[in-house]
Amino acid sequence: MDYNKLALELHKNYGGKITTKLRDTDELDRDKLSAYYSPGVGAVSRAIAESPEDLPKYTWTNNLVAVISDGSAILGLGDLGPRAAMPVMEGKALLFKHFADIDSVPIVLDVHSADEIVATVKAMAPSFGAINLEDIAAPKCFEVEERLKAELDIPVFHDDQHGTAIVTLAGLINAAKVTNRDLRSAKIVIIGAGAAGTAIAKLLYKYGCTNMVAVDSKGILSDDRTDLNTEKQMLLDYVDSSHSGSMDDAIAGADIFIGVSKAGLLTPELVATMAPEPIVFGLANPIPEIMPDVATQAGVAVLATGRSDLPNQVNNALAFPGIFRGALDNGVAKITDDHKLAAAEALASLVENPTPDEIIPSPFDERIVPVVSSSIK
Amino acid sequence: MDYNKLALELHKNYGGKITTKLRDTDELDRDKLSAYYSPGVGAVSRAIAESPEDLPKYTWTNNLVAVISDGSAILGLGDLGPRAAMPVMEGKALLFKHFADIDSVPIVLDVHSADEIVATVKAMAPSFGAINLEDIAAPKCFEVEERLKAELDIPVFHDDQHGTAIVTLAGLINAAKVTNRDLRSAKIVIIGAGAAGTAIAKLLYKYGCTNMVAVDSKGILSDDRTDLNTEKQMLLDYVDSSHSGSMDDAIAGADIFIGVSKAGLLTPELVATMAPEPIVFGLANPIPEIMPDVATQAGVAVLATGRSDLPNQVNNALAFPGIFRGALDNGVAKITDDHKLAAAEALASLVENPTPDEIIPSPFDERIVPVVSSSIK
Repeated sequence: MDYNKLALELHKNYGGKITTKLRDTDELDRDKLSAYYSPGVGAVSRAIAESPEDLPKYTWTNNLVAVISDGSAILGLGDLGPRAAMPVMEGKALLFKHFADIDSVPIVLDVHSADEIVATVKAMAPSFGAINLEDIAAPKCFEVEERLKAELDIPVFHDDQHGTAIVTLAGLINAAKVTNRDLRSAKIVIIGAGAAGTAIAKLLYKYGCTNMVAVDSKGILSDDRTDLNTEKQMLLDYVDSSHSGSMDDAIAGADIFIGVSKAGLLTPELVATMAPEPIVFGLANPIPEIMPDVATQAGVAVLATGRSDLPNQVNNALAFPGIFRGALDNGVAKITDDHKLAAAEALASLVENPTPDEIIPSPFDERIVPVVSSSIK
Repeated sequence: MDYNKLALELHKNYGGKITTKLRDTDELDRDKLSAYYSPGVGAVSRAIAESPEDLPKYTWTNNLVAVISDGSAILGLGDLGPRAAMPVMEGKALLFKHFADIDSVPIVLDVHSADEIVATVKAMAPSFGAINLEDIAAPKCFEVEERLKAELDIPVFHDDQHGTAIVTLAGLINAAKVTNRDLRSAKIVIIGAGAAGTAIAKLLYKYGCTNMVAVDSKGILSDDRTDLNTEKQMLLDYVDSSHSGSMDDAIAGADIFIGVSKAGLLTPELVATMAPEPIVFGLANPIPEIMPDVATQAGVAVLATGRSDLPNQVNNALAFPGIFRGALDNGVAKITDDHKLAAAEALASLVENPTPDEIIPSPFDERIVPVVSSSIK
């Protein structure tokens, strides 16, 4: 299937993916218009002015997520700017509606510093029930999310970080079962210290994993590195940073390889240096760090990728619809690490008998949103 | 009918007025999801990155208006802040959908200086096809609109100003016919020099009215006033500012009274000082400057108000749906004075035989949006 061709065709035919409709589908007569708009709506405005916390009782914010990006890290395409980000953010809005019946508005920003992004999102925040940050480049994505979480009273969730981390943890819980490992003591190497790699390291640490090494393009993140930015320095708290070395050094002897790096990075020769029956999560898109045939040949026991046409897809759509459904329905103002851990365990529990080809549920499994959303409370 | 009670009931029952749905209502299978989102959507992003002007070909911006307010002048209620503005802006989104099938997103802003409002709207402008500013207090509304019009490449329209002005001009064209007047030479007094009063004066001037006086709470706007802000000083160019005096002085001898002021301001005694068969537009909401029974008794020949339960309602909903429908469909990037004049004449033309009780078409007249939109090209 040529998805690029189909995408261009579908987008041209429909001229976009979402539209609005009225909640009240009965005839709108003059009386109703006078109640939904002036003069009657003034009574609703006064009620909200008196009790601002009642905003979701009277407006669509009760079911509304803004999908916000500055277009600085669009899919694997890099910084193409806000307009090019629009079809991706509208696509996310489509997924929100399709999987969790959540209303969603794509907002692309023509400002790019962390200060400007934070100021703009804060300024419009009363318009929404929750905020999904998307495709914002690291390291500014960390600062943007932290500041907005601290300053706003609605959920703020950077999906590239936490969605990926939650689904990765869910998959690892089952992959560890398949290979009879204790995930918490397994030796884990994470290649790539951007948004997703950092979030994965943090969430695995919160889960209890104590034997992790993180690697960026310069090698192992270790205490003696002098070139680390603030975010990578913070990452040192979650991993074993006592030894320096190359990527190859880090991979040697590892039970679990997690790549958020680039196509083909994990060669059969490198796999051969890992522990027996290794677990590999090759999450580079669209081409993973190792392809299934090569991985099998090299002795990989369980392989997960980001691809929908391969088994064990680490797909954010398994997490974010239920996360936001739960936050909106249960009045959760902050999505915490405990919520993320609970969501990962809930997702993992949906695969009753994990096998090498099934450690992660299919995104079409209708139990996902109810189970994940009930873990956000 | 108690519209306040009905409004609170309806808003509580539905918990809001709008929702989203997918444009493609066929089954979304795995292939379609891979085209509407990753990986296929990347091809659409690349196409837009190469040709940013194609954004509306591929995204919902082709049919999308943002309704933006900082809540500083909500209906007649004053400054109640962004959250209290939300039901009004969502109501406007309902009207956009209902009357013109336009998708619309209400955005309320938690910033209030002209600089901050302009910066925020500019930052998110690539997300929308057009911008409707709403319920922003004068005089900052003038600066916000002018700067955004100059700096953005999509239509920006402050409806409180121009919607009211367009419908007022349409009504005056027919009221002049009913009373056998030449509108361009008639003596017109405008009471209230805020957003709507200023826009009405400007549009009537562009139409050719040469005998106008404007009045604020301190009296006639005249050249010798030393207390006028920049916006009121600019207004002097459109009116006869050679004589100073009180409001009563201005009303004496006037053919046409246009009030955007306060309830009951126009007494029978004042009407008695006007020219014979005067025309009165009493647009204060919810209670006009003069009520119909009093007006008839006092000799008013034609009365228009802002109320839906009285004849001749000056209702912005006659203008903005068609204005934006036309701008979006015809690729109009700036809504000019000529567009506004054409829209007013188009609206007026829908009343074939104007009478004192029918100078303005009903908002339920289905010819309105096609006729108005075809004047925006």
